[in-house]
Amino acid sequence: MSELAINPQILTKSAFAPYGDVIEIDGATHWTINDGFAERFHDLATIDVAAEDGHPLINIFRAKPYQLPLPIRLMERHPLGSQAFFPLGNANFIVIVAPPDDLPQPKSLAAFVTGRGQGVSYARGVWHHPLIVIGETCEFLVIDRGGPGENCDEVALSEGEAVLIAP
Amino acid sequence: MSELAINPQILTKSAFAPYGDVIEIDGATHWTINDGFAERFHDLATIDVAAEDGHPLINIFRAKPYQLPLPIRLMERHPLGSQAFFPLGNANFIVIVAPPDDLPQPKSLAAFVTGRGQGVSYARGVWHHPLIVIGETCEFLVIDRGGPGENCDEVALSEGEAVLIAP
Repeated sequence: MSELAINPQILTKSAFAPYGDVIEIDGATHWTINDGFAERFHDLATIDVAAEDGHPLINIFRAKPYQLPLPIRLMERHPLGSQAFFPLGNANFIVIVAPPDDLPQPKSLAAFVTGRGQGVSYARGVWHHPLIVIGETCEFLVIDRGGPGENCDEVALSEGEAVLIAP
Repeated sequence: MSELAINPQILTKSAFAPYGDVIEIDGATHWTINDGFAERFHDLATIDVAAEDGHPLINIFRAKPYQLPLPIRLMERHPLGSQAFFPLGNANFIVIVAPPDDLPQPKSLAAFVTGRGQGVSYARGVWHHPLIVIGETCEFLVIDRGGPGENCDEVALSEGEAVLIAP
C-alpha cells in the first residue's frame, strides 16, 4: 500500500463549508457600536451544542507544535456538538477534516492551513484531527459542549496510510 | 456635587466574583489531551444565554482606545444573557461594573484593569461600561446571546459625576 501525502490548502470559507465555519472578520456582517468606539463582527460561527441537554463551554487549549511530515494516526468527532477554535497568538495551525457519517479514509481527508486572524468551528459530527500547531506553542480559545452523553468517537488510521506534509 | 474618581484595581477572580467570571488559565481545572500535545483548561466562564429562546453567538469586536481620564457617561446591561470578552492581542483593558438590579450610581461603580491572558464574562444583568481599551486598537473574541427579546438596557450618568482615572 502506498502512503498518501496530505497537502494543506489555504483555508477559505467556501472550501471549508462542508466541514463547518471559518471564524474571521473578512466577509462578516458588521456594524458600529459603543458610540463609535467598537465594530461588531457578528455571529461568525454556528454553536451547535444543545443536543441531549448540552450547553456551551469556554475553555483555553494550550497546544504544543507538531513536526512535519506527520503520519496521520487518529481522527475524532464529537457527535453531540460543534467545537470552535480561535488562536490567541499568531501561530498558524493546520486542520485535517473528513465528512461526517462515513469513517474517514486517507482519500477522504482534507487539510487546510490557517492564516492570521482565522479560527475554525467544526460542525457537529465532522471528523477532525487533534489540533495541529506548527512552529511554537499556541493557546486557543475553544467553545465546545458540556453536558451528559458520550461526545467523542475516535478512529485509528494505520501507520503508512496518510502523512501530512508541509504547506 | 463633587466628581468621584474611579480608580481601577487589579482584576482577580475573587474581586470580580459579584459581577461574573475572570477567564484565565491561572487556577483553572485542566488536564492533558491529544496524546500529550495539548492541555485543556476547562469551563472558564458561565455562558448564560438560554433565556427566552436565546442561543450563544461567537463574534469579534474591534475596539478603539479611549483616553484617560474618561468621564463615565453611560452604563449598560444585558438582562437576557451573559457576555464574555477575551482579547486577541496583548492590550490591557479596563472594565467598569455595577451590581445588577439597582440603577448604577457613581458610588456603586467598581473598575478593574486586566492583565495579560485575562478575559471577563459579565453575568446576566450586570451593569457594565462599553469595552475600554487603553493604548491601541484591540480585537476581542466575544461570546454573547442571540435570539428574540430586548437585551440591552442603558442608563446615562451625568457629566461630572464619575471619572475613570489611570490605574
